[in-house]
Formats: sequence, structure tokens, C-alpha cells
Amino acid sequence: MRVADNGADRRAVVLVSGGMDSATVLAMARRQGYDCHGLIFDYGQRHRVELKMAVGVCESLGAVSHRLFRLGLDAFGGSALTDPAIGVPTQPGHDIPDTYVPARNTVFLSIALAWAEALHGSDLFIGANAVDYSGYPDCRPEFFAAFERTANLATRAGVQGQPFRIHVPLLQMSKSAIILQGLQLGVDYSATLSCYQPDQAGRACGACDSCRLRRRGFCEAGVADPTCYVVEPSP
Amino acid sequence: MRVADNGADRRAVVLVSGGMDSATVLAMARRQGYDCHGLIFDYGQRHRVELKMAVGVCESLGAVSHRLFRLGLDAFGGSALTDPAIGVPTQPGHDIPDTYVPARNTVFLSIALAWAEALHGSDLFIGANAVDYSGYPDCRPEFFAAFERTANLATRAGVQGQPFRIHVPLLQMSKSAIILQGLQLGVDYSATLSCYQPDQAGRACGACDSCRLRRRGFCEAGVADPTCYVVEPSP
Repeated sequence: MRVADNGADRRAVVLVSGGMDSATVLAMARRQGYDCHGLIFDYGQRHRVELKMAVGVCESLGAVSHRLFRLGLDAFGGSALTDPAIGVPTQPGHDIPDTYVPARNTVFLSIALAWAEALHGSDLFIGANAVDYSGYPDCRPEFFAAFERTANLATRAGVQGQPFRIHVPLLQMSKSAIILQGLQLGVDYSATLSCYQPDQAGRACGACDSCRLRRRGFCEAGVADPTCYVVEPSP
Repeated sequence: MRVADNGADRRAVVLVSGGMDSATVLAMARRQGYDCHGLIFDYGQRHRVELKMAVGVCESLGAVSHRLFRLGLDAFGGSALTDPAIGVPTQPGHDIPDTYVPARNTVFLSIALAWAEALHGSDLFIGANAVDYSGYPDCRPEFFAAFERTANLATRAGVQGQPFRIHVPLLQMSKSAIILQGLQLGVDYSATLSCYQPDQAGRACGACDSCRLRRRGFCEAGVADPTCYVVEPSP
């Protein structure tokens, strides 16, 4: 796992969701000199408008290519993000919330690993964050370290001495620090969407965890929030 | 990672490919008392007739349910099994062969993990083998141990004290021992297919690594090989 890197090995797969964190990570990877290939997952999420945003993020931030990968995780259910029978929570809790998608980051990273190995790249970037996060187990540093180790035992490239590196540059950053970093790198946050349940027009709900964290980040950064919310998030 | 287990925790996801190894594993998991859910991957493999065999294996060996999961790994290429431009090797080599699919077992296990967590099961079974295998890095014990560790850091269940177990019961078994075990458990090997490049009628080529290993296993077990080959495998 790397929190920062010099970009010496140049081909990277970047997970892009359409949200603000992954857009910032793409801009950071580009600035570090990587040729970035954006990997976007259509995993049956209810917030499908984010897929369109993700393609726009890849195009506007200079990804060499992007790929929309269909993955039927919704068939398994077990999460408010993929199962219409489970409501999106609007109050923060102390436990892992219902928006947790079983093994999502493990699945996402493993497919990113497959693409990176086929591309002869060694670097994977993911916009996970351990500070302003929702308590997901697969956003913790120990998970990324374990995945990196597994990746290097699993692959031809890893075994043959071209180890993979999992870059999690936002891991220890606050939301406000992420926003300030992104603005410095030219990220247009009005073209990103963090909400778990946007309306048909692509407007953020203003009520879910993700909307609240986003708004708080802009407040703390002292920057105007360009997001269009259905209801203004409470502080 | 477990090579054998008492089946105390009863719901398991079993990776089923249509080949002889995974059929044997399904029979072993059933015998150990697990309620087995068969996970079959359509990952763009050229040997697509195996998908039909896999469904038959799940049905005939008593899986509670089975699921065909579409996964577009062929879009990435990089393997003789998914890219028509790369030929299937017919001579054994010393290196990792071109039939290696980048990160395949990592991807398969991560999706099995997602399904198992959604099902509230804790057990995953995979028919990998470290003896009669083709040199794939993701068939080695150290890979499975690392994946199990990652799985238990990645998931809600793992964090909340219901650890996942990756069962690789064939790991240290010879092909002949696998065959003898399967026959004892009632596996019909004529309804399985191991070949990397079967013909349209579903007949095994007799020339690829996988056909050679299969035939040798039957010879060593002293059992007639029920497989229908296009060309008899050389010893």
C-alpha cells in the first residue's frame, strides 16, 4: 500500500465512481505522471446517474481510457445500495451501516488487478478514506495492506518480480483536505456526485451520510459547495 | 485456509467450473454436511460448453442453489483462455503458461465472498490443486492463506467475529487421489469436462495440459477414463 508515490512506473488503473474522492484521486495520479485507465463499475447500484458522472470525470481529467464493467452484485442483495428492499439510512450510527456492500472493495480491486496485469501496469489507485468514512471494514489501512500482499501472491507479474502497488492517497486525509487538494488540481466538483440516492435529475438528496460528509467537507474547507441538493444537508 | 473441516457452520459457496476437480469438491462439501450454493462463472472462456456441464454438476450433486455469474474478463484479454488471438499451448513448459488468466482466482473468490456474506454463510470451497497443476500462482497455498486473511479484514462478518474459511480440500491431492475420492462419493466424471478447447460437440481435445493431466490421473488411479477425446492424450 502506498499513500504517495513518485510515479516511476507509469501505467495505472484508477477506480472511478463519479464521486468527489475518486475524481480527486484520478487528478492526483495524473499529476504524479501516471497514464491512467479509469475503471467504472456498474454493479447494480441504485444511484445509477453516477455512472454517467464517472465517464465525464475520466474524460475531463485526462484518463487514457476508461471502461464500464458490468458486475451483477445486485443479484446477491444484502445492501441498501443494491437492494431496493433495504432503505438508505439517513441518521449516522455507530455500527457498519446498511450501505455497506458485501466485499465490494475486494471485488473492485480484484477486477482492477486483473485489468492492470493484462495492461502490464503495476499500480492501482482507489479513493478510499479512513477518516471521513462510514465505518466500512474495506476502507481500513489493514485491508489494503492485506489485499496488496494477496495481489502479489496471486499474479504472474507479482511472482515474477513486478509487484503491484495499491495506492490509497486519500486514506488519512479529511474531506476538507481532499477538496482543497482537488481544487488545486483543477477538479470540477459540480461534475461529481456523492449521494447514495439522487433523484432522477441527478440532484443529491442532502439527507444520506454521504451528502452530509460532503457538505461538512466544503464547510470546513471554507469553500462554496457547488452541489445541487434536493434538501440542504443539516450541519 | 482449511484442507478439511467438520462442517459445523452449514452454508457454503462452492466454485463450480464443470471440470472434475470442482465436481469432486462439491461432493466433498456435501458429504461434510454443508448446504452448498454453486457459483459458476461465465467469464468469456472459450470452452463455453463447460458452463452447461457446471449447471449439470450442481444439479446432480445436490447443490441447494446455483448461480451463473457473468464476468467480462475477456474484455481485458491477456490469456489463451479468453483471447482468441493467443493459442492454447499443447506442450508443457516450465513457466506459467498462456492459459493463466490474470488474477482469475482472486476475482472468483472475491465474488464468492460477496455472495457468501450476503447469504450469511462463512465457508467458501474451491477446487484448486497445488500438485497436478499448471504453475498458476493463484493455486498455491500461500495465495489462499493471504486471501482468507484479506477476506476477514474486508467484510462485516469477518470484523464482527464470524470469520470466513477458504476450503481448498484438493490442494495437496494427486489427480488420481481426487478421482478415487470422487468415485467414492458418487461423482460421474463422464458429466464433467476439463479441456481448455473442446470441440462444438463438447469432446475434449486430448492435447492441452488439462486433458493430459486428466488422462494421467485416471491411469494412475487404475480406473477407466470415461472422457470422450478427439485425439487420445499422449501419456
